[in-house]
Amino acid sequence: MKIGIFGTGMVGRALAIGFEARGDDVTIGTRDVADLMGRTEGDQMGNPPFAAWHAEHPGIAVGTFEDAARHGELLVNATLGAASIDALTAAGPDNLSGKILIDASNALDHSTGFPPALFIGNTDSLGELIQRTFPDVRLVKAWNTVNASLMTNPGPIGDGDHTLPICGDDDGAKKEVAQILESFGWQDVLDLGDLTNARATEAYITLWIRAFMTLGSPMFNVKFVR
Amino acid sequence: MKIGIFGTGMVGRALAIGFEARGDDVTIGTRDVADLMGRTEGDQMGNPPFAAWHAEHPGIAVGTFEDAARHGELLVNATLGAASIDALTAAGPDNLSGKILIDASNALDHSTGFPPALFIGNTDSLGELIQRTFPDVRLVKAWNTVNASLMTNPGPIGDGDHTLPICGDDDGAKKEVAQILESFGWQDVLDLGDLTNARATEAYITLWIRAFMTLGSPMFNVKFVR
Repeated sequence: MKIGIFGTGMVGRALAIGFEARGDDVTIGTRDVADLMGRTEGDQMGNPPFAAWHAEHPGIAVGTFEDAARHGELLVNATLGAASIDALTAAGPDNLSGKILIDASNALDHSTGFPPALFIGNTDSLGELIQRTFPDVRLVKAWNTVNASLMTNPGPIGDGDHTLPICGDDDGAKKEVAQILESFGWQDVLDLGDLTNARATEAYITLWIRAFMTLGSPMFNVKFVR
Repeated sequence: MKIGIFGTGMVGRALAIGFEARGDDVTIGTRDVADLMGRTEGDQMGNPPFAAWHAEHPGIAVGTFEDAARHGELLVNATLGAASIDALTAAGPDNLSGKILIDASNALDHSTGFPPALFIGNTDSLGELIQRTFPDVRLVKAWNTVNASLMTNPGPIGDGDHTLPICGDDDGAKKEVAQILESFGWQDVLDLGDLTNARATEAYITLWIRAFMTLGSPMFNVKFVR
């Protein structure tokens, strides 16, 4: 399957590796390829600069947001929430039209220190904002509730038996995404319903961050025990 | 132990039964006892009117918010979030002073339909508002993330192995509350830290409600799998 991923941080990289390992043909997109490849410093989390990472993953194509959008039959938004609308605008609405977009973003507002608050929420969500801005994309909110390294590999904790909530307004798109998630080993994909549920799954990230601070590791997730 | 519970709805009743079963001496408080006892209709959830419930639990004393506050060595706020400040004001700040208050309330705003939004959140929380309003109470946020029937009896799902996050600014109070929770069978009490964490655990209720709608039963909780 041809996959276009927007965003070259931890999330985009982990997803690119995951899809490639599944046998998919991946293009990872960024705002400015030359700028990205020219960076020589890693990020605050200890991740290497992109070029060093990419040298170890030469099978993953690198392009602009527009390149990734044109390439992908399935698209994934792995950009920072505050940059998502701009990234998808650069990708080009026509290149998104009719395609499934898995939206893994969160509306984190880092302007007020750590832990971050949300810049949109409660009676609206970033997922809904993206869907309203690009009404012809088939948006499925997923993956925004777990650490990047678990997204395509849930196995390392609890034998993979924990929950991934998804939501969106397009039932067919959710069905396809659920199948993809199951192909990555997810055993408990929980379809909450329409995209207004993104208000809840995006709000959960605030609890995720607090739990991360307490547990001291991002390698956890919630299981809805019932 | 002498327990004072504010609120006579599902949560207050379940907690009163739970503490009584533990051998505690419970007073459950309400705004107007005569009004409460005179009600003849049940609530929207199918719960019986209070007097009918109380006839089956005669060992639980009924009083005003002030009576419950005076009685309790340990206090629990089980009122609706929108009514909590008024209830605690009626209880009397002097009667709260120096005591542990387990705050099980949520900031649900039912004014805009179902599912509810929050009337306070993101950069503040109801728990923090209560603590600011009654600075001499030792507030521990707990129980607001689970259904009433699980609060003092986590066993019916997952053999009781699921998570109860707590938070608050008073470490000694949190330690006492954790011991009480463990006496009720909680195996995974997760102390997130100071009371700003209530922003996250109160936000989680929006995901709880969505999951409730999807799962069709309130008998669930999250386990932080790690």
